[in-house]
Amino acid sequence: MAGVNGQAAVGGSGTRRRGKVLEKAILDATIEQLWTVGYAGLSMEGVAAGAGTGKAALYRRWSNREDLVAAALSSVLPNPSAIVLSGDSREDLLALLRCVRDAIAVTHGTVFQVVRSEAAEAAGGMMHAVVGQRVMDPCHEMILDVLRAGVGRGRFRPGADSEMVATVGPAIIVHYVVHQGPTVPDDYLISIVDDILVPLTAAPCSRGAITF
Amino acid sequence: MAGVNGQAAVGGSGTRRRGKVLEKAILDATIEQLWTVGYAGLSMEGVAAGAGTGKAALYRRWSNREDLVAAALSSVLPNPSAIVLSGDSREDLLALLRCVRDAIAVTHGTVFQVVRSEAAEAAGGMMHAVVGQRVMDPCHEMILDVLRAGVGRGRFRPGADSEMVATVGPAIIVHYVVHQGPTVPDDYLISIVDDILVPLTAAPCSRGAITF
Repeated sequence: MAGVNGQAAVGGSGTRRRGKVLEKAILDATIEQLWTVGYAGLSMEGVAAGAGTGKAALYRRWSNREDLVAAALSSVLPNPSAIVLSGDSREDLLALLRCVRDAIAVTHGTVFQVVRSEAAEAAGGMMHAVVGQRVMDPCHEMILDVLRAGVGRGRFRPGADSEMVATVGPAIIVHYVVHQGPTVPDDYLISIVDDILVPLTAAPCSRGAITF
Repeated sequence: MAGVNGQAAVGGSGTRRRGKVLEKAILDATIEQLWTVGYAGLSMEGVAAGAGTGKAALYRRWSNREDLVAAALSSVLPNPSAIVLSGDSREDLLALLRCVRDAIAVTHGTVFQVVRSEAAEAAGGMMHAVVGQRVMDPCHEMILDVLRAGVGRGRFRPGADSEMVATVGPAIIVHYVVHQGPTVPDDYLISIVDDILVPLTAAPCSRGAITF
């Protein structure tokens, strides 16, 4: 049953909610639908039913399915701007790789869909765009900033602050997700930093000093 | 119309073929179907029609769709064992990354499907397995061999012959494919070797000598 006058309908849950409480219930139901029926099978009706409200409560907030799913994803994605960089290159790179790892885990790896059906492409493309704008792009820029700072302090070799070097950590994470699944162990991230990024960025003749 | 007594049927193409000629026509039609209707939409009937033959000509050679698609993929994938290693680490790593790049290009990037539907998972999983066994795994082992040889000769630093270091090149290629598309430019592969693998593996204090 659709809500009226800005109030949520009395839905399946039998409770009357409004404002932020109802919004969170709708976003949670959207994420739930995304992982159970997938983006292609997700409908405003299905989400409304899952949230125990009416479609009107959804359409008052989001004009379409894309906006709703984008809002639901954003509500569960990590926030790179909340990461406080310590100035310790190793710790900062690890924190940023954890952010990338967590963003992928939230999407269950589906941001790496490379699919032929239009519906799936739309899903992969839209989710890819949301996760890219919200997490991947900011993390990439922050990784570049850490590399530039390291080069500036002579801690990293000249040229270590390149786009491709900044891509290596996330690339190894994506490779792991594509081949092993969406949950990357923390030990693996630590190994990416200590066994790949440290030697890759080390100033000549100072690797021993950099490694610890 | 189905073929009889090991002969190909007179099909849509109006030509009578048998043996290797017919087999190639069937494998080519399978690849064509794979990229036009996708694995989920691919059928023995559709491939038979595309090849201008009968289903019996297919079933005489492959017992099911999975075997047919695996055979078709294998017929177009690069063959790592055909790569002659020169002993020049840089050239050998580049040749192996080109093999990885070409294998992905052949599959149009579909080996990186991470999909929710069973049909697509079966496709991604089966194709992933074929490409993994035929190309990715052998290339990974050959990259490890090149790294071990470089460490043995003191050209690479101790520890540069690790599983994760061997993963870096393919991981950057996969990351490119997932984000930019299945065709990776050769200049990009050269940059992976010169800007990432050379400094990552360089023996301490000898990067300058290694870079060229």
